[in-house]
Amino acid sequence: MISKQIIEDISNSSAIRAMFTEGQQLAEQIGAENVYDFSLGNPCTPVPEAYTQALLDVIREDDSLGLHGYMANTGYPQVCQAVAESLNERFHTSFGGRNVIMTVGAAGAINIILKTLFDPGDEMMVFAPYFTEYRNYCGNWRGRLTVVQPDFDTMLPDFADMERKVTPRTKAVIINNPVNPSGVIYSEEVISRIASILRAKQQEYGHEIYIISDEPYREIVFDGKETPFLTKYYENTFVTYSFSKSLSIPGDRIGYLVIPDEMADFERTYSGLAIANRITGFINAPALMQKAVARCLKEQTDVAFYDQNRKRIYGALTELGFTCIKPEGTFYMFIRSPQEDELEFVAAAKRHHIMLVNGTTFGCPGYVRLAYCVPYEMLERSLPAFAALAAEYGFISARTL
Amino acid sequence: MISKQIIEDISNSSAIRAMFTEGQQLAEQIGAENVYDFSLGNPCTPVPEAYTQALLDVIREDDSLGLHGYMANTGYPQVCQAVAESLNERFHTSFGGRNVIMTVGAAGAINIILKTLFDPGDEMMVFAPYFTEYRNYCGNWRGRLTVVQPDFDTMLPDFADMERKVTPRTKAVIINNPVNPSGVIYSEEVISRIASILRAKQQEYGHEIYIISDEPYREIVFDGKETPFLTKYYENTFVTYSFSKSLSIPGDRIGYLVIPDEMADFERTYSGLAIANRITGFINAPALMQKAVARCLKEQTDVAFYDQNRKRIYGALTELGFTCIKPEGTFYMFIRSPQEDELEFVAAAKRHHIMLVNGTTFGCPGYVRLAYCVPYEMLERSLPAFAALAAEYGFISARTL
Repeated sequence: MISKQIIEDISNSSAIRAMFTEGQQLAEQIGAENVYDFSLGNPCTPVPEAYTQALLDVIREDDSLGLHGYMANTGYPQVCQAVAESLNERFHTSFGGRNVIMTVGAAGAINIILKTLFDPGDEMMVFAPYFTEYRNYCGNWRGRLTVVQPDFDTMLPDFADMERKVTPRTKAVIINNPVNPSGVIYSEEVISRIASILRAKQQEYGHEIYIISDEPYREIVFDGKETPFLTKYYENTFVTYSFSKSLSIPGDRIGYLVIPDEMADFERTYSGLAIANRITGFINAPALMQKAVARCLKEQTDVAFYDQNRKRIYGALTELGFTCIKPEGTFYMFIRSPQEDELEFVAAAKRHHIMLVNGTTFGCPGYVRLAYCVPYEMLERSLPAFAALAAEYGFISARTL
Repeated sequence: MISKQIIEDISNSSAIRAMFTEGQQLAEQIGAENVYDFSLGNPCTPVPEAYTQALLDVIREDDSLGLHGYMANTGYPQVCQAVAESLNERFHTSFGGRNVIMTVGAAGAINIILKTLFDPGDEMMVFAPYFTEYRNYCGNWRGRLTVVQPDFDTMLPDFADMERKVTPRTKAVIINNPVNPSGVIYSEEVISRIASILRAKQQEYGHEIYIISDEPYREIVFDGKETPFLTKYYENTFVTYSFSKSLSIPGDRIGYLVIPDEMADFERTYSGLAIANRITGFINAPALMQKAVARCLKEQTDVAFYDQNRKRIYGALTELGFTCIKPEGTFYMFIRSPQEDELEFVAAAKRHHIMLVNGTTFGCPGYVRLAYCVPYEMLERSLPAFAALAAEYGFISARTL
């Protein structure tokens, strides 16, 4: 007698979590040191000491009723202001506290944006490969998902496919930059092209099409690359952000969204977001975490750690003969499956105790995702298993093992 | 171009928050000491020292990656287990960790339960006067609200009205005990009567009807009264709880739900809740708060403080000639409006700088809600204003002022 939709959700439930669970079961059987689990995007760089200190300081310094009490549903005004100023400093924007709403992570932010925007049957466009939860977030608010195919040479959007698929019901386009699962960064040029297509379609259909720029991996970029800040390229843009990856605190559920002054119908949209944050049950982002992250806006995770992993795994796997998309950001790498059905490749890897996630999960069959947010030493230990897997596919001679 | 529903939500937005905002504006004009704001249910008893200490201890003692990292979407197993044991001790139940899911407050808990249960058009029954957000939570998941009238002598449910209104589409009945806004407690007898009606209807319609027992005020009860624990009276019962009131930490967003072993289709329902917690964007209850509340399960707020306020305001207002429902729990009192349209009474009170919330907000016109979670000294200071209001209605002679 539970909901038909949730029964469907249960059976489709995240392949990522399923693989993680299988990895844990395998670890119990054969020992954790013999399992190479690359399934979960759980940050593994240390939590910055400054965050721990900030928590301790606000707990000691602030009046406890004020610290743990209700505030405006949009967050503490001084926290919103601090986030705005930090963005202005980094991206030469001119936000004020009015442009920032503190949220329960980026997942909370996206859900309240969709609740605010969507009438039943409205469409949200995603670019494959895409973060699999977008489909669920869209479904929560009665939207339909439209999936744009990638250009398989670059893993960037196939713009012709995008143009064909924007319909009069397209209300939002979500961009995850850098991209989980492919590790690709959408450059200024790519963003400008998407913006120009949407601007033309807005005019053609006579109503707004919103971009949601989901940026939890914004700072995890390599080789001096940068993630473009999207409000500068397109006016009807929401930015969603989480501190989960940049401070290694995914369990603490803290993030924010940006709604720029240029947003159509700013006042009403802002009110809608504030109400949506309340009535979806979030009420507000956790009070203590708001105050703590406000003191850590200049903190960075150890990007060099992820970069070392990236170089090692990309180098080793390409040398073994696997075809990999070179990650420019995030802590994920996309690998082309050596056989058409990537589920069989995932199963083959599992026989070598390597846990990967099938690309179909991300709307991109024929590929698998490897999450290299793991201890370097585990990554190093996994390489003989990858070599054995490569030998199984005939990339290298079994004798070289 | 934002959602039609959210536009409606904006215009219906909480009268409670509106009154609070008006109170703050008035305070700016005439001084905070001259405004008697009884609009908001914001706890004002101190945060227990043990909670502050628990936060400091877990931050210092725990490994920081583990403390702020992802855990199962249902919460840390040891925290769920601790909550279960604490319930067993108090209510002679026999829960294990498998029966508890940590949530983003009770609001988060109710939303994930409704997402798990509801197909479009399913009905949720509430008993007037009811917590106004239930309507929004129900709407989020495409449900329809059915409102049962109270017996106006007791403010308990009108059982005949309830029986008439249970339909084949009734999927859930939400009970808020003790009741916000009336302060009434549903006794064992009342609960048994509701349970027996629902059991008969379950049999008649051949499917489950679930009770959601929402208990954020469970511990705030007076005169030795107790709140019945509902899983003991009806098998298909979810309990939702928040630490917001019992620890005065509403901003920290931490609570839990209970799903007993007797629940129909336990395994699948539990899986549905876990997935719903993830895909609605909560992901998990804030990690740090989970660990902190687990160390404070025996902590109690200062109920004597609320009781002192209750006695003073109930005594003074009844003496002035107002008709009040004597609160048995919570920190709210329901007052019968001396004129038919209670909005005019609210406006009259406001002219005396007393901020109350109209009963229509709670599905109960003709009444107003007074939240006495305020400093005792402010309550004391407000009494002459109530006397002036009583005089305006001719309850007392203006000369006695």
